Amino acid sequence: MVVGISILLDFSGVVDERFHCDQVWRDLIGRLIQMGGMKMLHLASHQFSSVKQKELADERNLQTGGTTAFALLSESHISVHTWPEFKKVVIDIFTCGPTIRLDDMIEYLREHIPHENLVVTRFERGE
Amino acid sequence: MVVGISILLDFSGVVDERFHCDQVWRDLIGRLIQMGGMKMLHLASHQFSSVKQKELADERNLQTGGTTAFALLSESHISVHTWPEFKKVVIDIFTCGPTIRLDDMIEYLREHIPHENLVVTRFERGE
Repeated sequence: MVVGISILLDFSGVVDERFHCDQVWRDLIGRLIQMGGMKMLHLASHQFSSVKQKELADERNLQTGGTTAFALLSESHISVHTWPEFKKVVIDIFTCGPTIRLDDMIEYLREHIPHENLVVTRFERGE
Repeated sequence: MVVGISILLDFSGVVDERFHCDQVWRDLIGRLIQMGGMKMLHLASHQFSSVKQKELADERNLQTGGTTAFALLSESHISVHTWPEFKKVVIDIFTCGPTIRLDDMIEYLREHIPHENLVVTRFERGE
């Protein structure tokens, strides 16, 4: 018996530094949740280095960390992890609500995040 | 280029109600993180109904909700969602640290949670 769906989105070639910034992701997760018809229970994020720190690091040719964000939902969760040094953004959407508009959420992310490649993997959970 | 590993654990036949209780999962996630050599950044959880409410619901033959818990880590995240009415516990471990003892964590969960069936799926992320 399926209790939920995991959507794993793996973006490559994400050079726009906004998508490695936690505040941008806090806003974007809020929009996704609204779009998906979900209810937020809790939102947390962590910036491994600020955009300003990244600029300084770039000047010195150093690697910097990305951002990580997580929303706990009535309908399960959304997580985001980014690696600016590898131009990667990895998003998980786990839903257990039958009416969630998952396709709209995936299309919104695909169109909204400039990237070179996107791999979407879908898993039925609990079987 | 692989930036992380997702381990998806789908437990079926979990009738022990402790594993549908958020406080139990908060403690268990703490032990997993210690075992894995990870660092916790943030921990959040939500009990969709208390064990006491579940007892009352069982007396009346009603379905009740489970629990959901999430840990944001320096090395990515752990999430847990449970459905006592379907005897299901679904856990995601996402790690980006090369030294994380994932096999130990999976074996600990397999031995610690009484269950009928467990499906473990492993995904390399960011390719």
